[in-house]
Amino acid sequence: MCGGAGTRFWPFSRESRPKQFIDFFGTGQTLLQMTADRVRRLVPEENVILITNEQYAETVREQLPGISPEHILLEPARRDTAPAVLWAAHHIAARNPEASFVTLPSDHVILRETDFQEALRRGFEFVEKADRLLALGLPASYPNTSYSYIQKGDPVDQNSHLSYIKTIAEKPGKEMAEIFVRSGEFLWNAGIYLWKAKSVISAFNKDVPEMASRFDVSPDLYRGDAEMGFIADVYPKTSSLPVEYAILDRAANSYVLEANLGWSDLSTWNALHAISPKNKEGNVTQNCRSLLYDCQHCIVAAEGKKVVVVSGLKDYIVADTDNALLICPIEAEQRIRNIVNDIRERFGPEFT
Amino acid sequence: MCGGAGTRFWPFSRESRPKQFIDFFGTGQTLLQMTADRVRRLVPEENVILITNEQYAETVREQLPGISPEHILLEPARRDTAPAVLWAAHHIAARNPEASFVTLPSDHVILRETDFQEALRRGFEFVEKADRLLALGLPASYPNTSYSYIQKGDPVDQNSHLSYIKTIAEKPGKEMAEIFVRSGEFLWNAGIYLWKAKSVISAFNKDVPEMASRFDVSPDLYRGDAEMGFIADVYPKTSSLPVEYAILDRAANSYVLEANLGWSDLSTWNALHAISPKNKEGNVTQNCRSLLYDCQHCIVAAEGKKVVVVSGLKDYIVADTDNALLICPIEAEQRIRNIVNDIRERFGPEFT
Repeated sequence: MCGGAGTRFWPFSRESRPKQFIDFFGTGQTLLQMTADRVRRLVPEENVILITNEQYAETVREQLPGISPEHILLEPARRDTAPAVLWAAHHIAARNPEASFVTLPSDHVILRETDFQEALRRGFEFVEKADRLLALGLPASYPNTSYSYIQKGDPVDQNSHLSYIKTIAEKPGKEMAEIFVRSGEFLWNAGIYLWKAKSVISAFNKDVPEMASRFDVSPDLYRGDAEMGFIADVYPKTSSLPVEYAILDRAANSYVLEANLGWSDLSTWNALHAISPKNKEGNVTQNCRSLLYDCQHCIVAAEGKKVVVVSGLKDYIVADTDNALLICPIEAEQRIRNIVNDIRERFGPEFT
Repeated sequence: MCGGAGTRFWPFSRESRPKQFIDFFGTGQTLLQMTADRVRRLVPEENVILITNEQYAETVREQLPGISPEHILLEPARRDTAPAVLWAAHHIAARNPEASFVTLPSDHVILRETDFQEALRRGFEFVEKADRLLALGLPASYPNTSYSYIQKGDPVDQNSHLSYIKTIAEKPGKEMAEIFVRSGEFLWNAGIYLWKAKSVISAFNKDVPEMASRFDVSPDLYRGDAEMGFIADVYPKTSSLPVEYAILDRAANSYVLEANLGWSDLSTWNALHAISPKNKEGNVTQNCRSLLYDCQHCIVAAEGKKVVVVSGLKDYIVADTDNALLICPIEAEQRIRNIVNDIRERFGPEFT
């Protein structure tokens, strides 16, 4: 899934180039390319399917030239993840009715690749055995209020880290998040799901029948030009819904596998700061030649080989690109969305 | 005079491009070009003489293509202003032994052009009448500790704002500067001097005979290739000395004309801030599309059409160029020199 359009990393992420398409860590690979790489070690490239908004078609083709054009699914409208997953399930089932697949956001970071591979291996084994929907859950190490949480129900067995899903809660308040973490019953939802294509279709049929019926057509309509025509017609008419609420939160056969993946959704500068290597004053510097004097817990990111000198700042973001510079307290990062709106109004869309 | 090499406006000023060669206010003119323009309204262009370090020869020719190459005096070594003024006096006297001239720094700003022209007119009238050295002095409006001060002696007459110079004091401490300002006897030294060429030569003969004798040669040596050869030999051997201490502070015939020119030596970011238009929070923004949220008394300067967003800073400099960005408290600006040294060591001279 690589159709998201966030602005929270402005000026690095732009409307025309959201964060999955950015070389976030200055490694030479964008987050999308890193995610594709991570998957290609487990899944042959011809079985990798991308779903994105049609405005990013060209960017996706450029960044992943090895993916067959037929496997780049272009959404004609933004409808969140439920229709995207349902479309993908039909697209896959039309090619192999018994296939299982993993659904992955393309703009997250996973540091523990071996544990990730092991989790996928165990996850596929689990969902291929029966009609099951499986989420990966991360140990909730602190009360983050911008994550989605999965409450574990009964364990599947004693040693497997597999449990039923009791409920899914999105972005709890501060107090609620603290209760979640203290209880030990809640995991962070990584947004990574494993399932068979036919289990997905069956879950939609049961829990979201109206949406399911729109997509319930002959497999021939999930191939080539027919597929594009069919989707252009049906996709804009469907509801916008996240897949976890459409099926996982409602189904009786939904499970969570607890795994420590070194995961971050990189949803905010603070999340990026948390996961990045820091100097002894807690400063993170990316892609620049930096000199920090009397700075603490700052994140300084620039493009190119720029020299950045910062003196006397604490808990600040300094983010510099070719045509925009942001200097803002980390705690004010939720205002970046408003800032981007102000910029669009004042200076025009070329800066957002 | 356009040979200075300051780094206090890094990253805007660079060793290869000190501040006189920069379009400081984004008006399309560098400080040097503005100074030349200011002078050309009073002095024919063929009588404008530039003195600079030889490393800036090309820059000067580019920025002022109308100046005759013979009138661009290239210092083969840095020796402060006394040898520069003495050379210029001989260069001028060789062409017209009775000529008077005004010596001007090229990197200052003067906002009250009409008062400046009036001061020069009166100044020339005064020094052309007799053997006199004249400085322009500004009302000392606050106890600046980085300026040079001129103490007025007896007035020349009641109404002319002309006085003898009692003494010149460079960069007083805080307490001393306060005493200077309270006394009403001290003016800021603008570094602008008027005199006849022969008065300058005579003052050097009297007060700095060793230096004077080096330059006391046939007028033929102040022309064409002979001049370059002579200077290449003599200039590096002379002492380094500021002209105000070489002659003005010692001579019995030195005077000061008080004039309010709307002058700033632009020696620091703070000086630039003081002289620039501010919004109601006291912020100054230059050459950029800026959005300032909750900022006070900041100076934000960028090159090109960059968008700069700053949130929550007070008393800060934000200065952004193509390959360098500085974010630093205004009060720490005297450390910029050290910062530039650090950068040269760490990242190389291309950033300084």
